[in-house]
Amino acid sequence: MTARSLDEDLEQGLADGAGPSPAVRRARAWLSRAAEPGSVSFWRFVEDAGPVEAVRRIRAGRAPDAVRALVGARAEQDASRADLLRAQRCGARLVVPEDDEWPALLLHGLTVAASAEPDDPRRQSPRTTAPVPPLALWVRGPSRLDEVAERSVAIVGARASTAYGEHVAGELGHQLGERGWTVVSGGAFGIDAAAHRGALAAGGSTVAVLACGVDRPYPAAHGALFHRLAEEGLLVSEWPPGAAPHKHRFLVRNRLIAGLTRGTVVVEAAARSGALATARRAQKLGRQVMVVPGPVTSAMSVGCHELLRDAELGAVLVASAAHVVQEVGRLGEDLADGPERASEPRDGLSDVACRVLDACPVRAGVSPERLAAIAACDVLDVLRVLPALELADLVEHTGSGWRLRRPETERGR
Amino acid sequence: MTARSLDEDLEQGLADGAGPSPAVRRARAWLSRAAEPGSVSFWRFVEDAGPVEAVRRIRAGRAPDAVRALVGARAEQDASRADLLRAQRCGARLVVPEDDEWPALLLHGLTVAASAEPDDPRRQSPRTTAPVPPLALWVRGPSRLDEVAERSVAIVGARASTAYGEHVAGELGHQLGERGWTVVSGGAFGIDAAAHRGALAAGGSTVAVLACGVDRPYPAAHGALFHRLAEEGLLVSEWPPGAAPHKHRFLVRNRLIAGLTRGTVVVEAAARSGALATARRAQKLGRQVMVVPGPVTSAMSVGCHELLRDAELGAVLVASAAHVVQEVGRLGEDLADGPERASEPRDGLSDVACRVLDACPVRAGVSPERLAAIAACDVLDVLRVLPALELADLVEHTGSGWRLRRPETERGR
Repeated sequence: MTARSLDEDLEQGLADGAGPSPAVRRARAWLSRAAEPGSVSFWRFVEDAGPVEAVRRIRAGRAPDAVRALVGARAEQDASRADLLRAQRCGARLVVPEDDEWPALLLHGLTVAASAEPDDPRRQSPRTTAPVPPLALWVRGPSRLDEVAERSVAIVGARASTAYGEHVAGELGHQLGERGWTVVSGGAFGIDAAAHRGALAAGGSTVAVLACGVDRPYPAAHGALFHRLAEEGLLVSEWPPGAAPHKHRFLVRNRLIAGLTRGTVVVEAAARSGALATARRAQKLGRQVMVVPGPVTSAMSVGCHELLRDAELGAVLVASAAHVVQEVGRLGEDLADGPERASEPRDGLSDVACRVLDACPVRAGVSPERLAAIAACDVLDVLRVLPALELADLVEHTGSGWRLRRPETERGR
Repeated sequence: MTARSLDEDLEQGLADGAGPSPAVRRARAWLSRAAEPGSVSFWRFVEDAGPVEAVRRIRAGRAPDAVRALVGARAEQDASRADLLRAQRCGARLVVPEDDEWPALLLHGLTVAASAEPDDPRRQSPRTTAPVPPLALWVRGPSRLDEVAERSVAIVGARASTAYGEHVAGELGHQLGERGWTVVSGGAFGIDAAAHRGALAAGGSTVAVLACGVDRPYPAAHGALFHRLAEEGLLVSEWPPGAAPHKHRFLVRNRLIAGLTRGTVVVEAAARSGALATARRAQKLGRQVMVVPGPVTSAMSVGCHELLRDAELGAVLVASAAHVVQEVGRLGEDLADGPERASEPRDGLSDVACRVLDACPVRAGVSPERLAAIAACDVLDVLRVLPALELADLVEHTGSGWRLRRPETERGR
């Protein structure tokens, strides 16, 4: 990293044009400290102006009122170079949307949902619950974020868990790890920690999405666990190094646990647990919500049972990792159970999946939005069925977009 | 009871015409011993000929082959008078379809399902699973069968239950009893007994549907329980006094537990439990299937979780008696949750419920079949929504059929 000033770096960025130049990374590092994440207006401003120009305008006092109000006096401060150095010292990096490592496909669900928010900031969802993509992610650990997110499941639940809940979370984490699935959770006591430990014990991949800096994970009592996650999995945060785990940050963070994964499993949850909100956010992003039941005599399963009783939520009861993989692997009813029911891959496809498949071109890949337009369905539907179609070897991503995958026999010729 | 011969009684019956004459009762008593229940062909033969004429034809060798094959050598025997006397001695009675006490509305579901069976006996459902109404019911105890069945819920589950399952079944039985609902179950060890005991402890109504004679309930170790049921609830059986609890009779009996109740709750069930079959039969009769979850680590909850994972079954997770009453009281989505959602009783009604309501006449009551024809829906749908409409005071049964219930204000004038 050079020792140029922020302004020098930004000038350089403009000269470089698009791409993950040092300027873009430094601009997004600055943005990650300048404003609390979760604001639709702020995200839109950065999307429209680009990160470098966005920072220049904020620092020059030329940003819209809503954006300036969020940044306040921090517009004049700059810790971006220190933050990047501090991250480097603890083995972390800043992953930005311009990087290949950015988990673009999964986070696209948040992009679509954010785009549907109204223009008027007063009518937008509150920052603690708004569906909005992160501006950048501080990532600590050896794995590539996009690769682990591609086959990942969130396991969430109570901090004040029971021995039963911890046993089940640990078993699920272990079995998912054995099957090559990544576990994503917070870093809290109870279900979070049990799921991570299960995955680590199986030699599996596991990711903690934090509400504080990746160099000072919270709670401190999980120091050894976080150390293992940084060595064998990933610690991920929207907040810059050193950031403290304020209470509201956990709420803002929860959308990433839902948004970075194919589905969310709730293991134990009391009647008004935060895990319930994470589950409902996952459903709004078109992700599968899965729930582990428990004894009806246990207060820590009351929230789980309420989720399963909510017909509109469409949550699925899961009792094992096999049940979980069945849901996220084929994403609900999009693909058939197995060869005994489907003589051809297309046979078991849902109506939407068939339409999306028919919309895929043979040569140049196209965007999910384009597929939605051709298939006459919602972009969220397209994003929901694409992974299933990809797993069934029916479509492939070319880097620029989606296209049909030619059968093995044809490719072999 | 007179000491006339069977043939004398039957002659008397023909002279009397329709109605629960001694002849009809004696004919049905004879039929209940002459053939194992559950045969669609046999039931149709009795329906078409009437019970008295049916017995005359069977005894004269003039019945169809399928009917004669079921009766065999028993055509020449007659224990009907002895059976009726034996029932009388233990405080039991034979309730026949011609009696007011016959639970006609609930059993109509079985009638409709039996009518849909094919004509060819070889293509009909096997006797152990066929949906077919009983020809008569031996009933022991002080309650009126039709009245207790009207507000009844089946609680079924494993014989090899856990302490958890027995606790929950007992609590459900107790709370349902307190709320004025009747518990219906078998007489087995485990969940059955726990549900009965809970209902009895609350001073509630409880019914055991047996696979043997009501004078020799099985298992013998439940002698004290059966004694209390005969004193405070009901023992019900299709088989005449003295009948032994053969294994296949439990399977045949199960359709009555589903058919005599508004809904079925499964408390604990292993992977291949008989309770699962009862639940699926309840669903085929249009009744609500409710399932109590348990720890995913418990083998005795595996069957319950499979039922909840079966999207086609539409089973609802219940964790309390309040959840159960919510389902059977409003029967799924047919009625709104409460006054805060519905300003008028009609507001919360499903499309089918509205059509059935519109089909009800103001004066003379009409049959569910007639309502189905006018409302352009299935008879099973009509039978499913009628109890909910009745609970909402929108329709009433006149004895001959269903009609609109006039609002209180009009009736008061």
